[in-house]
Amino acid sequence: MKLFRRVTILGIGLIGGSLALAIKKHRLADTVVGISRRRQTLALARRAGVIDRGSLDLSAARGSDLVIVATPVDTMLSLARQLSAVIGSECMVTDVGSTKRCVVARYETFFSNYLGSHPLAGSEKKGVRFASGVLFAQSLCIITPTAKTKGRVVTKMTKLWRSIGAHIVSMSPERHDRVVAFVSHLPHAAAFSLASSVPKEYLPYGATGLRDTTRIVASDTKLWSSIFLSNPDNITKAITLFQQHLRRLKESIRRGDRRRLQIFLHNAQIKRQELA
Amino acid sequence: MKLFRRVTILGIGLIGGSLALAIKKHRLADTVVGISRRRQTLALARRAGVIDRGSLDLSAARGSDLVIVATPVDTMLSLARQLSAVIGSECMVTDVGSTKRCVVARYETFFSNYLGSHPLAGSEKKGVRFASGVLFAQSLCIITPTAKTKGRVVTKMTKLWRSIGAHIVSMSPERHDRVVAFVSHLPHAAAFSLASSVPKEYLPYGATGLRDTTRIVASDTKLWSSIFLSNPDNITKAITLFQQHLRRLKESIRRGDRRRLQIFLHNAQIKRQELA
Repeated sequence: MKLFRRVTILGIGLIGGSLALAIKKHRLADTVVGISRRRQTLALARRAGVIDRGSLDLSAARGSDLVIVATPVDTMLSLARQLSAVIGSECMVTDVGSTKRCVVARYETFFSNYLGSHPLAGSEKKGVRFASGVLFAQSLCIITPTAKTKGRVVTKMTKLWRSIGAHIVSMSPERHDRVVAFVSHLPHAAAFSLASSVPKEYLPYGATGLRDTTRIVASDTKLWSSIFLSNPDNITKAITLFQQHLRRLKESIRRGDRRRLQIFLHNAQIKRQELA
Repeated sequence: MKLFRRVTILGIGLIGGSLALAIKKHRLADTVVGISRRRQTLALARRAGVIDRGSLDLSAARGSDLVIVATPVDTMLSLARQLSAVIGSECMVTDVGSTKRCVVARYETFFSNYLGSHPLAGSEKKGVRFASGVLFAQSLCIITPTAKTKGRVVTKMTKLWRSIGAHIVSMSPERHDRVVAFVSHLPHAAAFSLASSVPKEYLPYGATGLRDTTRIVASDTKLWSSIFLSNPDNITKAITLFQQHLRRLKESIRRGDRRRLQIFLHNAQIKRQELA
């Protein structure tokens, strides 16, 4: 089902590339244009059939009826003005940023047909060569409409996400940033800190426990700096709560309080079961 | 290659059951006897061909030339005396406990042919029904000989572990407990605390990041209470170091110090690569 004539995707990494592939796979647009800062990425994306056309220049977004911004969050913020000078006022705009308040606030001032999105998909893999047309199948996509968002933009963007297999949840940008601080940013903060803590000479003895808990440390560090810095108040609050629990656990161990320790572990386990 | 006539395994859980299966698979003993506190476990283990004979009574260990203790650490400590009254002085004894100082110290006072072992294998699965004869293939097994350990015991136990596919590393019980505090106990402490920190109503939004970092929270909580309490000084030290790194990361985020943040994430990532 065709939804758009021409979709431009800014940033052809894992998410942008996977979106391009999914849009082509489901024939949701006539043309998919990819814009990247790297010639190599464009060549790779074209060769792999991820995009129909590629450009190093933002002006290639001209004439699109949908622009999807899939760059790191700080790049999103910095290119909004320039993008608004290129595209028409009727063009729909969305982004896939991992934090929403700052992006939504800025994009709403520049674009009248904007809706923030955050597909909860991806992996620690980086780059268009890991792009997959089924990355969003059975995934969750949070959309963050505000009082300014037009109903027809929500309807159309919901259709797009559903067409590529995602389930939609709608919440405010503020709630979104609180939620992801806990379910995504905090686990990353914990994993990076955990990997930092293990003495190098002990690493050869790391088994599946350490491997699993630190897998996401392989994530793009530039992207993650950008995410952490775009949601600092919620993330530091989440870390503070984590520190409190860690302190409580440590105290039970130090005191040899088996009862408190078992209750702590048991409650964590009960909660974790909700996730499965 | 037969190494023993009669092996008795105390505790037929995931590790004990897998050991029994591996010993039978490689024909390392004539008879494998399983001792458990639960009739149901014995019935299951016998039906599945995990053990040749089962008993609820410790005295069934009589006449063995090897006893492997595969119970939680606190049970190991409490049954040493009783076990020593049952088995002959020539019987070899080992254990598979996750901490070694306390077990080794106690077992050396009761058994003259003892060697501590810690196979770094297993999973969050619990119980004999997940036992596998190939659990130790390509795994690492730490043995912890001391000045009191006899050379022929080390030789024979090394043969046993190698025969079922494990690679052997030898270190003192003290070093073992420092190492595992970081590579195994700390990741568990972090994962349990992380699961505790996430508000319940946010859990439906948890994606692979949260799922992976907290997978080990599904581990046996009684076993883990016992492990934490048997290595408290090393674990609290490891948690303290983790808290320092966490505080540093939080501070970089709070201050918006992108340079420090990126260095932190980058260093963690470089270190994590050693693990792969």
